Amino acid sequence: MLNFVNDYSEGADPSILKRLAETNMDQLPGYGGDEYTAHAKKRIRQACGCPEADVWFLVGGTQTNQTVIDTITPRWAGVVAATNGHVNVHEAGAIESTGHKVLTVPGHEGKLDPDRLDRFCADFYADGNYEHMVFPGAVYISHPTEYGTLYSKAELEAIAKVAHRYDMPLFLDGARLGYGLAAEGTDVTLEDIARITDVFYIGGTKVGALFGEAVVFTKGNTPKHFLTLIKQHGALLAKGWLLGLQFDTLFTDDLYIRIARNANNMAAQIRTALDARGYRRVYHSTTNQTFIVMSQPTIDRLSEGVGMGFLEKYDDTRSVMRICTSWATTQGHVDQLISLL
Amino acid sequence: MLNFVNDYSEGADPSILKRLAETNMDQLPGYGGDEYTAHAKKRIRQACGCPEADVWFLVGGTQTNQTVIDTITPRWAGVVAATNGHVNVHEAGAIESTGHKVLTVPGHEGKLDPDRLDRFCADFYADGNYEHMVFPGAVYISHPTEYGTLYSKAELEAIAKVAHRYDMPLFLDGARLGYGLAAEGTDVTLEDIARITDVFYIGGTKVGALFGEAVVFTKGNTPKHFLTLIKQHGALLAKGWLLGLQFDTLFTDDLYIRIARNANNMAAQIRTALDARGYRRVYHSTTNQTFIVMSQPTIDRLSEGVGMGFLEKYDDTRSVMRICTSWATTQGHVDQLISLL
Amino acid sequence: MLNFVNDYSEGADPSILKRLAETNMDQLPGYGGDEYTAHAKKRIRQACGCPEADVWFLVGGTQTNQTVIDTITPRWAGVVAATNGHVNVHEAGAIESTGHKVLTVPGHEGKLDPDRLDRFCADFYADGNYEHMVFPGAVYISHPTEYGTLYSKAELEAIAKVAHRYDMPLFLDGARLGYGLAAEGTDVTLEDIARITDVFYIGGTKVGALFGEAVVFTKGNTPKHFLTLIKQHGALLAKGWLLGLQFDTLFTDDLYIRIARNANNMAAQIRTALDARGYRRVYHSTTNQTFIVMSQPTIDRLSEGVGMGFLEKYDDTRSVMRICTSWATTQGHVDQLISLL
Amino acid sequence: MLNFVNDYSEGADPSILKRLAETNMDQLPGYGGDEYTAHAKKRIRQACGCPEADVWFLVGGTQTNQTVIDTITPRWAGVVAATNGHVNVHEAGAIESTGHKVLTVPGHEGKLDPDRLDRFCADFYADGNYEHMVFPGAVYISHPTEYGTLYSKAELEAIAKVAHRYDMPLFLDGARLGYGLAAEGTDVTLEDIARITDVFYIGGTKVGALFGEAVVFTKGNTPKHFLTLIKQHGALLAKGWLLGLQFDTLFTDDLYIRIARNANNMAAQIRTALDARGYRRVYHSTTNQTFIVMSQPTIDRLSEGVGMGFLEKYDDTRSVMRICTSWATTQGHVDQLISLL
Repeated sequence: MLNFVNDYSEGADPSILKRLAETNMDQLPGYGGDEYTAHAKKRIRQACGCPEADVWFLVGGTQTNQTVIDTITPRWAGVVAATNGHVNVHEAGAIESTGHKVLTVPGHEGKLDPDRLDRFCADFYADGNYEHMVFPGAVYISHPTEYGTLYSKAELEAIAKVAHRYDMPLFLDGARLGYGLAAEGTDVTLEDIARITDVFYIGGTKVGALFGEAVVFTKGNTPKHFLTLIKQHGALLAKGWLLGLQFDTLFTDDLYIRIARNANNMAAQIRTALDARGYRRVYHSTTNQTFIVMSQPTIDRLSEGVGMGFLEKYDDTRSVMRICTSWATTQGHVDQLISLL
Repeated sequence: MLNFVNDYSEGADPSILKRLAETNMDQLPGYGGDEYTAHAKKRIRQACGCPEADVWFLVGGTQTNQTVIDTITPRWAGVVAATNGHVNVHEAGAIESTGHKVLTVPGHEGKLDPDRLDRFCADFYADGNYEHMVFPGAVYISHPTEYGTLYSKAELEAIAKVAHRYDMPLFLDGARLGYGLAAEGTDVTLEDIARITDVFYIGGTKVGALFGEAVVFTKGNTPKHFLTLIKQHGALLAKGWLLGLQFDTLFTDDLYIRIARNANNMAAQIRTALDARGYRRVYHSTTNQTFIVMSQPTIDRLSEGVGMGFLEKYDDTRSVMRICTSWATTQGHVDQLISLL
Repeated sequence: MLNFVNDYSEGADPSILKRLAETNMDQLPGYGGDEYTAHAKKRIRQACGCPEADVWFLVGGTQTNQTVIDTITPRWAGVVAATNGHVNVHEAGAIESTGHKVLTVPGHEGKLDPDRLDRFCADFYADGNYEHMVFPGAVYISHPTEYGTLYSKAELEAIAKVAHRYDMPLFLDGARLGYGLAAEGTDVTLEDIARITDVFYIGGTKVGALFGEAVVFTKGNTPKHFLTLIKQHGALLAKGWLLGLQFDTLFTDDLYIRIARNANNMAAQIRTALDARGYRRVYHSTTNQTFIVMSQPTIDRLSEGVGMGFLEKYDDTRSVMRICTSWATTQGHVDQLISLL
Repeated sequence: MLNFVNDYSEGADPSILKRLAETNMDQLPGYGGDEYTAHAKKRIRQACGCPEADVWFLVGGTQTNQTVIDTITPRWAGVVAATNGHVNVHEAGAIESTGHKVLTVPGHEGKLDPDRLDRFCADFYADGNYEHMVFPGAVYISHPTEYGTLYSKAELEAIAKVAHRYDMPLFLDGARLGYGLAAEGTDVTLEDIARITDVFYIGGTKVGALFGEAVVFTKGNTPKHFLTLIKQHGALLAKGWLLGLQFDTLFTDDLYIRIARNANNMAAQIRTALDARGYRRVYHSTTNQTFIVMSQPTIDRLSEGVGMGFLEKYDDTRSVMRICTSWATTQGHVDQLISLL
């Protein structure tokens, strides 16, 4: 059966497996002290146009969000996110389990609005009781968002401006960053993200790697003793070179962007077909995720031939469904899907 | 200057101070192992009509909320509260600092709506991804609420029914419970609360005691090793008899209700005067708190003579202000206030 | 029956109750924003000879240890204590519940040895794997210790020197500080403690107050947003003036030291009697606690007339018992005890 | 240069890489919902002789210890371990960061002694103050230990008996389990471990896998909502089949034991050579780790040709060094090492 359920259904770009095989019996130091990791860090710093960036490799997205947010957010503070933010909804309380509240601001198409963020913080400090409340201590955004939408450069800059005005680092969850960077029409580059945010990560798990997320601290702001903190969060991989090697590969010859672009192109074809057939799309996505309002009969019919994701109830009779392409989606898959629609 | 800022501005009912003085040089066992504490527990069990209730004394409200919620809520779960709930807004993240998310449902006049709670839980378990989310694991309500409003018996029963259907204990924050029980028109008795909820507390700090909250587990459901858990939360008072003695006094000759009724009567007089003078009240409170929409000039004028509390902005030019009476409010205070209005 | 079980068996010095009664119906701002609290802070700063000291009032000892240690110890670090330290043994895991390990160094008569502390830290940083270990991040000592022993000024200075060499604040638990300051032969003054340590507290619960501990940050090193952190730990007392008023009283006319001296004098009489009768004492205490090795028959005989504390098994047939005087112990109590011995 | 530093310096058994390559473009459900994972669980249940065992796959050792201990240990309790236990020393406080104290009992050759454990628990419950202390709530042992030593079946049974007498689950850290099961002279089988312990894990990272640990709950005792708890700990791998596939391979045709036996055989050759040359060994290891007391000149000389691990200072002039073989160690490596010795 066709599978458009998510973007982590396949292994890795074959070139990654090849390098794992080639280096398999090399004897390498653990915990990221190896040359491949050093090399991957160098490539990422270059790609970010940020020679002073500090790069770390973790295994998964929730783990990364948990480790980063816990270590950049002061004890008296929470992290501000859009209400629909992954850290607020789909991480099983990983953030709160480290003692931090997720403070929410209603999002728009999954995005945090700089003005609403500003008002949230202004209201906080205007409240005579604010010392009895959870301080806004860091800002979390995802790019692309959980709805496949993208910030513009101006929007990111506006959010960063507000964040910094209230002494909060801006953290960008890039679990699907490749799909955002490769999106048609985006004016946001990796260099922009490195310049604008304080810390972000480049998702590997959903963009061509077996697993792995590259965390980038861009402003000399790595939390002190970060390796110890990673270990304390249970997030330190013994064979760290497995991460270094994958990201070194992804950042060679622009592989990361090339495979992401494939996913976006496939999604664009699907969207064209959906529109032509009169499906109602929601959220303005130019990335690998496409959201459609579907009635239950349509869902039932399609589900016989293709796996899709369920996002949420739209109304009593319809649901918002997700069609998700990935770096591994082929033209054949897409043609089959379109013929089913 | 007149002070209607809150209900914890004075010490204790004089009879409490008297007993503290009388027993001051008695040599008593620590940590609540004394006779006064035993006696106070007995009186509370009687007042609750719940001979099997298990009673504990803690020092303050946030401390009690933190200790109870942390110990009744499973590790994989959060506590459901109205968005405006004290635990969600004004406890500096005390709940999250123990690892639990506060899951919010929009309230109505500060109250949690049983239908909305039901829908929240139903939606949770209907979501295919619920294992990646924070389970609803306990329900928090306050009675009176932060807005001075009260649940009816039917409402409490409806909430308990939903809570229990989803395997959640119902916890009632009674920081101001006396004012609720003594309110005109309420159909909720202390016995009802003991019967309907799984755990609740009887607030002393705001109702006649120097400090202290009496936690009542009503269904043989005290968390195992609760004394150790209290200690671990930093909440175990060495001279526990200070708590026992105060609650023993408050539950002698109905003192707790009598002094609470005084506060409500004073508030009723104030409300009559406010209404007569055309002030616009919000929230239907029959307890000691009264909320009024006031323009800034009115606030400025009144603030010269009387301390009030600020709740929130109402619109660009007006605010919601709180006038709060207490067990210690006198007719003289009220007369002065009314002449100022 | 005679009670020498502990030093928190009575209420408060009568002058404290008197002031509570006098001020009972005053209307005061909450959370320590009142004048009595301000005044108490001023008196404590003066007594410490430390005009820039920052003083806070909490309710109990474990609560204070938990709040202070959690907020002065970095996330990647634990607190170093003598193995027998109260935070390591008798606080139900309150420190670990905030995420910090208690790192232990064997004590000598309850005291942390500066050389052992030095070696512990030196070994830590010499270990090639130290980044995988819990950093020593703060130092905890108690004065008097749990065994009634006292540090000399030179010892405190030596510990502080080691602590600061390894970038650790020195925190002194003064739950029984009065008994230490008033001890015969000590060369340690309150001013010394303020000068040498980074943060300490002056115990009220065990020295004349109903409850309360005064935390003193001596080097402009109060954790940022400490009031919020206190609240988050469930440790903020609504009627904060109850603490301020008690400490204001204790630090008027040297009351705190005078009543502590009484306890020490009573203990000295008991020790003289014990020695004369051939009891074997352990630990060199000049404070209010006296430890004696007793056989079970002796314990059984004495227990009919006097309550004592059990410290630990000494060997298969004997135990170490504690006789504890307090600010409230009278000559009559002591005479009775001596006649029993 | 020769590398005997540790047992996680190489990738994976080539058959694992082969299967990863074969299945790379399969579309599989995430989070362990795939067939390979189901199959691996089945194989492990069979190998354990425990059809009702519940098997879960996590990524790394510290992560597994943290997740399992946090979820099997009650809130009021800590986990008991030998003082040298990995969770007490080398996990950066991962256990404490979840709120649990590590309670320590001195080990013997790295092993927890059942009698000492018994005494520790008996003393705890005999202490009149035990409600103010951290309860022993679970038992942690490693097999092989951090020193390469092994428990006998009788020792494991004795520990389990004590643990269960005090209502504690027994958790066995099997990060190097293969080397223990394949050790010459051991009388402990995988079936024994499944029968005796309550939960244990089969280490993959150090025994032939790229990464991965298989957690086995043997008594119907999986913590409720364990998947959610794994997610909350940041430990849920999106592409869970990577774990399933590896363990399925390791448990096919006894691969896990065969490759572990190789490591042990290589270590045995090294030990024979060390003994013949008069090196002083410490700890009675029959597994892949060998510990030798070496003077600094010897260390310096050898370090030019071979990487070894440092365990600890032995005395002022000598250290305990570790020579560690692995599933990947070849006869050539060993011959070279022996010629250097």
